[in-house]
Amino acid sequence: MELPVLIETLRDALEHDQTEQLIDKLEDVHPADYAAAISNFSSPDLWSLLTFLPTHTQAKIFGYLPPETQVQLAIRVSRRSLSPIIRQMSSDERADLFNRLTEEQKDALLPALAQAEREDLLLLSSYEEGTAGSIMTSDYAILHPELTVRNAIDVLRREAPDKETIYSAYVVDNDRKLIGVITLRELIIAPANARIHEVMNHDPIFAQTSMLQEEVAALISHYDLLALPIVNEEQQMVGIVTYDDAMDVVEEETTEDFHKAATVGKLETSVKHAGIGLLYRKRVLWLVILVFGNIFSGAGIAYFEETIASYLALLFFLPLLIASSGNAGAQSGTLMVRALATGDVNIRDWSYLLGREILVAGLLGLTMSAAVVGLGIWRGGMDIAVVVALTMMLVVVAGSLIGLSLPFLLSRFNLDPATASGPLITSIADVTGVVLYFSIATWYLGL
Amino acid sequence: MELPVLIETLRDALEHDQTEQLIDKLEDVHPADYAAAISNFSSPDLWSLLTFLPTHTQAKIFGYLPPETQVQLAIRVSRRSLSPIIRQMSSDERADLFNRLTEEQKDALLPALAQAEREDLLLLSSYEEGTAGSIMTSDYAILHPELTVRNAIDVLRREAPDKETIYSAYVVDNDRKLIGVITLRELIIAPANARIHEVMNHDPIFAQTSMLQEEVAALISHYDLLALPIVNEEQQMVGIVTYDDAMDVVEEETTEDFHKAATVGKLETSVKHAGIGLLYRKRVLWLVILVFGNIFSGAGIAYFEETIASYLALLFFLPLLIASSGNAGAQSGTLMVRALATGDVNIRDWSYLLGREILVAGLLGLTMSAAVVGLGIWRGGMDIAVVVALTMMLVVVAGSLIGLSLPFLLSRFNLDPATASGPLITSIADVTGVVLYFSIATWYLGL
Repeated sequence: MELPVLIETLRDALEHDQTEQLIDKLEDVHPADYAAAISNFSSPDLWSLLTFLPTHTQAKIFGYLPPETQVQLAIRVSRRSLSPIIRQMSSDERADLFNRLTEEQKDALLPALAQAEREDLLLLSSYEEGTAGSIMTSDYAILHPELTVRNAIDVLRREAPDKETIYSAYVVDNDRKLIGVITLRELIIAPANARIHEVMNHDPIFAQTSMLQEEVAALISHYDLLALPIVNEEQQMVGIVTYDDAMDVVEEETTEDFHKAATVGKLETSVKHAGIGLLYRKRVLWLVILVFGNIFSGAGIAYFEETIASYLALLFFLPLLIASSGNAGAQSGTLMVRALATGDVNIRDWSYLLGREILVAGLLGLTMSAAVVGLGIWRGGMDIAVVVALTMMLVVVAGSLIGLSLPFLLSRFNLDPATASGPLITSIADVTGVVLYFSIATWYLGL
Repeated sequence: MELPVLIETLRDALEHDQTEQLIDKLEDVHPADYAAAISNFSSPDLWSLLTFLPTHTQAKIFGYLPPETQVQLAIRVSRRSLSPIIRQMSSDERADLFNRLTEEQKDALLPALAQAEREDLLLLSSYEEGTAGSIMTSDYAILHPELTVRNAIDVLRREAPDKETIYSAYVVDNDRKLIGVITLRELIIAPANARIHEVMNHDPIFAQTSMLQEEVAALISHYDLLALPIVNEEQQMVGIVTYDDAMDVVEEETTEDFHKAATVGKLETSVKHAGIGLLYRKRVLWLVILVFGNIFSGAGIAYFEETIASYLALLFFLPLLIASSGNAGAQSGTLMVRALATGDVNIRDWSYLLGREILVAGLLGLTMSAAVVGLGIWRGGMDIAVVVALTMMLVVVAGSLIGLSLPFLLSRFNLDPATASGPLITSIADVTGVVLYFSIATWYLGL
């Protein structure tokens, strides 16, 4: 069913108080789509559209609702109505919701859970945001190394409904230390009487709870894993991160990198749902910082006021010279920021890339000089054309080298290379451009 | 084994001609890591380091090698040595390699394959690049609807070694039309004597071969799928795209968007391996286009030459005013480009977002005015301070609104919103800034 049709059907059912009769129609609707549909309704209606469904389905749908909606419901709905859903949610989604509640709401929620669930929730929500611990789930399947393959499959069959995945199972010793991993594919191919420790992979890829979530996602993508086991400092198995959570992390981190590249601070919510105050705060800081950076460009111009007064025609070329420098810098900077993020290049490649960039930027500078020399002759005569062409060559090379080097410099000092944003590079290129242009003009025109 | 250690071990083995003795040491090395290690060696050595392994392992490792290296090997190595590897490769990786060969190399390769493999290869490589068809694999598991669950598991067990995944199996009718999907998890929970059509999901999520690869990846991510079935125009099942391929697509598309945002054309290879000529060609086009865009800024300055000659102090503020406009525009533009790409906003949201942007940009403009008014008084006196503050307010708002609207405008005309790059927005904001600034100055200073 298409989303608009589904929403209409739901609205109809609400109006005629016939939500119960929806169940048959909804059989083939994916929980993600149902969540998208009901998030168009306000809280009381949304709640009615959720609660006539079986609890297990409610929990699945609840997990797909936008975080803000989850919190809103958690606040408005009585604890007794909500707790069956919370209990059925997967452990990582439950911990995410919990972390978004106020201390008071947390205290109200905890008594509704069983002891084991409560301890699990408190443990999961204790990991620092942005780490493997904060995104992992504790609903993973473990197997004993001495089990036979036949019995292991039985264990997985029984546990399937409660586990995030049964396609990877983790083998732990009596101390809960991770000693192996086996996939369901390997299990169903293996001889039924073999012992797990005979057929498992003894050298599983794993991560610590403190690993950054983007590194976790990179590991999962690099090794094409379905799930990555997470261990604590004692090498004990404490959770898994599944590929679908890794995909969400990649999307989130990419959005953050895009925003950073445009000097926008980290938004915890989508731009559509962000308030005006929040957007203002996330944008104002760098705008103001960069204004003061641009004062240097202004000072450069002021310093060369006499040159400019003598040759006002020079001003015509100022915008295109400093813009070209900034544009070339934004190009090489962005190429490096992205290549560093994907691991295509690393900090040791700097000198090799710099050498190559000199050639590329030189060719670009020559082309750009050729593109403006005619304009120079037309607007200002031969002398000005020479100054403009020479400046263009130099500012394109300078901008490119600054753009290329800044991300490496930031990495070198353990800062995020993504901070080497277009606007920052542009501002630095502007100053360089102003100073180079008028220095060359002053020298060449003999002022 | 860490990568540098592994490379050292391999170099050692090559020098002493003891590659055969590596097999034991390599048992726990992941094919992805082995591929990364051997891609540091030149072709003949690389080939020696590959060929002593079992063919099945060779094929896996080969698939992880960088595309350029695959092609190099395919060209240098004799057809007889290569064909066993090519046969064992997964069908999508084989088609990717095939598409990178010259016509001559293709013709040389085809006779090495069996009839069925050849037809499969020609079909897969015939789909347009960037579509579902071009990234799908034909190594998927199909089940007959009348099979019992027990027999279906047997089928999957037998086929496991040759299939990309057996965790999702696809149910097709006698006409090969897709009629259902069932996961291995559902299969092992289901009663052994039930028929597949009784327990399968009758409404599977699927895509056409012509769907764009980024949309395929978005579907997989949205529904947390392990694999998405792909059908042809007759609804017949022709392939699947797995989650790990979707993750690769997301990375590739994101890189393209980053590059586009900095006016760099699409690179088919990593920036580290790109040649100087290629980098030049991918960067020069927009640099030149934008130069001519910036001529308008120059013309704006030339038009107001008299105003400038009377108040040279105005020039001090020119860089920071036009830069602020461009920076604010880059911020709102990037927020929109990314939100459109992730589906957080769509084209219908424009007027709502524009209304809100006026408020956010107004606040930003006020702050920026306040930040420069003191500077204005100090450098140019009260009159100039008023002109600068007023201009700052207006250019920040104008830049923001242009930045926000441009991606929607491009979308509206079916162009990629990512083309609304920082440099493009900056150039438009520059012209606007120059004209606004000197118009206000001419008017307020009574020139």
